[in-house]
Amino acid sequence: MSIAVERPTDVRLDQVHHAIGAYFAERTHSATRYGPEFTELWRIATDTVLGGKFVRPRLVLAIHSALTEDDGLAPQTVVNASAAVELLHYAFVLHDDVIDGDLLRRGRPNLIGTVANSTPASGDVALHWATTSGILMGDLMLSGVYQLIAELDAPAAVRSRLTRVLGEAIDETVAGEHADVGLSHGAVAPDLGTILAMSANKTATYTFCLPLAFGAILADADPATVRALTKAGRHLGFAFQLQDDVLSVFGDPARHGKDAASDLREGKVTAIIAHARGTRQWRQIEPFLGRRDLTPAEVARVCALLEACGARAAAERLIDEAMEAFRVAIADPAVPERAREDLGALAASLRGRTA
Amino acid sequence: MSIAVERPTDVRLDQVHHAIGAYFAERTHSATRYGPEFTELWRIATDTVLGGKFVRPRLVLAIHSALTEDDGLAPQTVVNASAAVELLHYAFVLHDDVIDGDLLRRGRPNLIGTVANSTPASGDVALHWATTSGILMGDLMLSGVYQLIAELDAPAAVRSRLTRVLGEAIDETVAGEHADVGLSHGAVAPDLGTILAMSANKTATYTFCLPLAFGAILADADPATVRALTKAGRHLGFAFQLQDDVLSVFGDPARHGKDAASDLREGKVTAIIAHARGTRQWRQIEPFLGRRDLTPAEVARVCALLEACGARAAAERLIDEAMEAFRVAIADPAVPERAREDLGALAASLRGRTA
Repeated sequence: MSIAVERPTDVRLDQVHHAIGAYFAERTHSATRYGPEFTELWRIATDTVLGGKFVRPRLVLAIHSALTEDDGLAPQTVVNASAAVELLHYAFVLHDDVIDGDLLRRGRPNLIGTVANSTPASGDVALHWATTSGILMGDLMLSGVYQLIAELDAPAAVRSRLTRVLGEAIDETVAGEHADVGLSHGAVAPDLGTILAMSANKTATYTFCLPLAFGAILADADPATVRALTKAGRHLGFAFQLQDDVLSVFGDPARHGKDAASDLREGKVTAIIAHARGTRQWRQIEPFLGRRDLTPAEVARVCALLEACGARAAAERLIDEAMEAFRVAIADPAVPERAREDLGALAASLRGRTA
Repeated sequence: MSIAVERPTDVRLDQVHHAIGAYFAERTHSATRYGPEFTELWRIATDTVLGGKFVRPRLVLAIHSALTEDDGLAPQTVVNASAAVELLHYAFVLHDDVIDGDLLRRGRPNLIGTVANSTPASGDVALHWATTSGILMGDLMLSGVYQLIAELDAPAAVRSRLTRVLGEAIDETVAGEHADVGLSHGAVAPDLGTILAMSANKTATYTFCLPLAFGAILADADPATVRALTKAGRHLGFAFQLQDDVLSVFGDPARHGKDAASDLREGKVTAIIAHARGTRQWRQIEPFLGRRDLTPAEVARVCALLEACGARAAAERLIDEAMEAFRVAIADPAVPERAREDLGALAASLRGRTA
């Protein structure tokens, strides 16, 4: 099995889909003991948080498969751990949406938007009820992840290792989110090092390092292998995040699916912007950032300036460096041959990525 | 050792204080790797969340002591589990304060208020940064509780039992909080049964049932004992909560320390109010509720009406019923004699309570 992230029909992914569906069905059923409104909250969660590309479960499944040389059906323990990793993503997304005040996700109402639309109240009361629902459902999911890991049919030592990795990933992700909001408010100084660390902490850790570590621990890999894969995952996640930043500014919105120039319109502080800040073009670039009403012509103008000042090239250099660090990390003898091949294939798909 | 909750000098409580202090010191130190702002967040958490009456650790320690007949220093495992229970309380308080928009706790700035005051930003930006900090620190605490339980030096079976009880308590508390906010917004219908269940779920479960179950599980008690204690804890917690409601309306504010009539001023939907709603005095009572500017004369008038309509008597009847149910629960042969005595002593202190 290749670890390429474009195989939605994979039978193992179906197993994870099924496990997550069963989890939400069971939770919605259990919620009935707390009344119709709480049941409705779980029903809305089922409708709004599911979906997505399952990047994280794919990584768990792929690395477990590579390390065990087993391409058959995934053991239920691995399926459930993959489901837990996806649930962790939902927990972060829910609290992220509360913090960012987002009512939409992929163009559709998210949990907060759906609750706000479905209550008879309006205005501030509806929004408060919806935001409260987002905070509380995020708490339920965060707790649910720990419960799923605790209930895995695996030796206590494996569960302990997974739990420790989970706790570290949560701490680091929260630190990254804290820095991200601090940067947007000017409470954290926007130097390049801080921005790069924030980005890796907020997303790469739980999207790459955690799933790779989970897959390896579930395959009973030794600590050196888990460490090497975690390190590789951090570099790879970092490269992916930078590539995302580049695509969202310079890519074809029709292909990557994000709102064209949404990072520019939101005034998001990315590595590209951090580089531009130190150039003579910054004076011309700055007034455009964070303006929701940018016209296509203005977007084109900013993109040209970001190219001219060398910000795009600088970001691509950082991607190359991260990829090189990734290659060094997977060359570690602690990484088994097949895992190296599969991760290498995933990495190779990165540079041609348009979405 | 008696389980009366008025012994702050107890050497076992000092052990818990020490463990919590060490936990926060370690977390603040670890936070430095994520920069000064994240370290500052942990420092503010240390300054603002600690304190309080340690009701929950007291219950863990007391029941463990009663079941093991050991009155000496508590084993470190029991101390750390007690610290985890207190940390869970902090997690709930943090998210509760975010949801309620509270910037104060016991008259002093809470974490949100402190962050808002200490940032150079002002207005909405300061408040958003502060609220974000509250959400994220709550997440860190919730995850921290699970980590503390996972790291206990106890058999895997004990850790599993504790983890399961923890998950159930979190689910139930969140459901109670959801209903509480729903009641205040009119999204949940305010019938007496719903209000009583909300109150028990939101507070009694994690304040009484969870600590009693933890103490018993740590003493390796059998499931029947844990079940009986959990049941007893629910009735007792329920009685305490109702007593709180009665005190906050009819008690002497100088003694119970709460803002006089704060429940009336906030328009809080308690069992007292739910009863009053069904009486002919409701027409006269309703206009006073939820008015921040109630004069002492108006407060006295509402209290007189709540007495006259039988709401106070109804609440006190409910307390008596809960206490009777509690006595039946601890009479269960699965509850060892000494635990029965200690819990009985705690319960006896309830009716004379003025604070």
